[in-house]
Amino acid sequence: MLSRSPVVDAVLAEADAGFERSLERLFDLMRIPSISTDAAYKPDCRRAAEWAAAELNQIGFDARVAETAGQPMVVGHRKPTGAQRHVLFYGHYDVQPVDPLPLWNADPFSPTIVDGPRGKQIFGRGSSDDKGQLLTFVEAMRAWMAAAGELPIAVSILLEGEEESGSTSLPAFLKAQHDELKADLVLVCDTTQWDPQTPAITTRLRGMLYEEITITAPSRDLHSGMYGGPALNPIRVLSRLIAGLHDEQGRVTVPHFYDGVDDLSPAVAAQWKALGFDEKSFLGDVGLTHASGETGHSVLELLWARPTCDVNGIIGGYTAEGAKTVIPSKASAKISFRLVSRQNPDVIRESFRDYMRAQLPPDARIEFQSHGGSAAIELPVDDPALAAAARALEEEWGRPAILMGAGGSIPIVGAFKRELGMDALLVGFAQDDDRIHSPNEKYELTSFHKGIRSWVRIADALAGLP
Amino acid sequence: MLSRSPVVDAVLAEADAGFERSLERLFDLMRIPSISTDAAYKPDCRRAAEWAAAELNQIGFDARVAETAGQPMVVGHRKPTGAQRHVLFYGHYDVQPVDPLPLWNADPFSPTIVDGPRGKQIFGRGSSDDKGQLLTFVEAMRAWMAAAGELPIAVSILLEGEEESGSTSLPAFLKAQHDELKADLVLVCDTTQWDPQTPAITTRLRGMLYEEITITAPSRDLHSGMYGGPALNPIRVLSRLIAGLHDEQGRVTVPHFYDGVDDLSPAVAAQWKALGFDEKSFLGDVGLTHASGETGHSVLELLWARPTCDVNGIIGGYTAEGAKTVIPSKASAKISFRLVSRQNPDVIRESFRDYMRAQLPPDARIEFQSHGGSAAIELPVDDPALAAAARALEEEWGRPAILMGAGGSIPIVGAFKRELGMDALLVGFAQDDDRIHSPNEKYELTSFHKGIRSWVRIADALAGLP
Repeated sequence: MLSRSPVVDAVLAEADAGFERSLERLFDLMRIPSISTDAAYKPDCRRAAEWAAAELNQIGFDARVAETAGQPMVVGHRKPTGAQRHVLFYGHYDVQPVDPLPLWNADPFSPTIVDGPRGKQIFGRGSSDDKGQLLTFVEAMRAWMAAAGELPIAVSILLEGEEESGSTSLPAFLKAQHDELKADLVLVCDTTQWDPQTPAITTRLRGMLYEEITITAPSRDLHSGMYGGPALNPIRVLSRLIAGLHDEQGRVTVPHFYDGVDDLSPAVAAQWKALGFDEKSFLGDVGLTHASGETGHSVLELLWARPTCDVNGIIGGYTAEGAKTVIPSKASAKISFRLVSRQNPDVIRESFRDYMRAQLPPDARIEFQSHGGSAAIELPVDDPALAAAARALEEEWGRPAILMGAGGSIPIVGAFKRELGMDALLVGFAQDDDRIHSPNEKYELTSFHKGIRSWVRIADALAGLP
Repeated sequence: MLSRSPVVDAVLAEADAGFERSLERLFDLMRIPSISTDAAYKPDCRRAAEWAAAELNQIGFDARVAETAGQPMVVGHRKPTGAQRHVLFYGHYDVQPVDPLPLWNADPFSPTIVDGPRGKQIFGRGSSDDKGQLLTFVEAMRAWMAAAGELPIAVSILLEGEEESGSTSLPAFLKAQHDELKADLVLVCDTTQWDPQTPAITTRLRGMLYEEITITAPSRDLHSGMYGGPALNPIRVLSRLIAGLHDEQGRVTVPHFYDGVDDLSPAVAAQWKALGFDEKSFLGDVGLTHASGETGHSVLELLWARPTCDVNGIIGGYTAEGAKTVIPSKASAKISFRLVSRQNPDVIRESFRDYMRAQLPPDARIEFQSHGGSAAIELPVDDPALAAAARALEEEWGRPAILMGAGGSIPIVGAFKRELGMDALLVGFAQDDDRIHSPNEKYELTSFHKGIRSWVRIADALAGLP
């Protein structure tokens, strides 16, 4: 059923034959302690960037180290004549700090192969996040060049060095280099599989709207003996507003909130249902036994496909030890919404504010402070590139790729959407137990090997699209 | 209509004739800087106590300075043979600190007479609170002794030196001296008139029940991207509980909350209505235009005769600057109830706790911390002593005495009720603009003079009771 180009077998054979060398190159990169949050490692970050640019040039890319106000970027291009499709691959060469160092079983920057419960593992900081992951793509491109003499698609590569410190320079860099970096699709290799045997594509990231509201009523703090009864209490007003944000079915009551929320496609709904996700264990890990939220949805649906409204903070009046009989003049809350599908954060912000204002009792005033908003990101299930990547992954792993969601946003994906108008295809080979950001980070040897092979196939599948 | 004993006119004449000397004694007491909160003035507090005991002895009381762990008490008695009725008069000889000193027009401890908009004023710290007020009673007793050779009733006097620093030693002292101090009624002169022309008796003090509740849901703080949707949010739970504490008519929804709340007697309701209380100005002073609280009640009724539920503090989650996408593991609130009539704080505490528990969603837990409870204090309108005092005040002032409430509690009144089982009759001659606790404290010369005359008449009226 799969229309595969005949050269792919040769490229996969090349990837297998060259795997030991691929692993050596990963070790080379892992030995550079490119910790971006610590100024002491700034030279190491530059060294990692230069190492990557040199490797890309060696493969056949036109690559360079590009300066920013922070850590440098690596940018490289190879655009074969006649290539129909152009992708931008994103990865990051910086790593998390390693403290507490005593908890590591060995030096985090002296990579080794160790035995694990599911087979051999690559041990060391950055093995998974993101040096191992980003090299799956680079080594796949190397195999294409070595076995086929050319890439099947046009490829740009952008590696940043500030992902672990907030990607501070990325948005401005994308804007400034718009014409150079704009492609059909962003490929990101910084996510997990569904499980060690099952590949996954993250196609949905929830968006976010974050509002802070402050209710003011009396012009100053009052004594509840002197004023309790007739005086409006802003904590009570705030509590009423918050309590009214959900109905008895757990649905958000803000008018027009559900405009643009798409129902899950039956195919994806069926796939998620078939996953056998262990809701009891997921909730039990944090001391819960029941799923809160909208009734009639599974936990995975609530996390990946349904919008939310949560209160992240509330404060008002006397909050220290003991008792004080105050009626405070104000109270405030931080309220955030996770958004899905085509929900428009700007529309919802205005609707939310109107809704809050309309419910105020006489004498209560409300102030709003915005802490930002961004739409959800959702690659349409019928997107041809998504379908092609899913087929390629199934071919490599022997199982259908799960189309996962992510409950949170991934800021860089939003940046690509905003600055370059590009959708992202998130394919990663990490496992939930890779201990990224923690001591004893590892990457399964299988993740690295089959990750390279997966990208070989995905590149071919994308090239085969009409 | 008034059955006045013929000797009263002579006592009143004596009070008038001796008024200049009464004023000199007040000045003597005011010159002693008896600031109880500042250890530097501890010797002055003792000096004030000794001064008062000496004066009482000089009048004819059997008085002494009694030690406590803090400032000393003054206790004195004069119990004429055959006196039917025994009252305990309470006052305090300590005063508030005087800072900020630069805001005073003159030395706070060098009392003088100054001109004010309504006539002459006694200027200085303690002129009103409470040295001037307590001496109205003492000087009235002196006039009785001088003109009639005896008091018309048995009188004990208790003057404390820690009222401005929390009356720390009072409850234990009352308990220890129970038999010595127990009388039919406590008289307290530490309150205001309704206005400069209208006397008042404070007959109602609201009680208090103060609870702190903490809602816990997840076992740790969660990321709202990872868990938002299915995870129970304790701030939302808390807000729902608080919002549900009142119905649409502003009534408290805790079961049995209104058990023991008496309707206002028609006579008192009519009196309050006739007062022409300026609700607009009372609310306007603190930036409000509407009375909140139970519908169908005037502001005075809401303050003096109706119970309340207020939230005095709330906190949960992230409350610093900016945004954090946390679902906190807990949230808490301080909730207090002002009680009236025969509401029982212990019964309401249990009902409140049951009510909160019954509304918890699955996985939410609640903890309660008590910050105390005390019943309201209400002198029955038909109490003969109250009626007698009201008649005496009307006779002196030419206007009916207003039976006022107070929205807050007066801790010492609760202490007399708890420790000695005694009701209190609160009669004071201070004005709202006496600037007690502030720079330039004053007491109207009329307050002092007619205050003395009022107590002369009240003592007689109490003696005349069957």
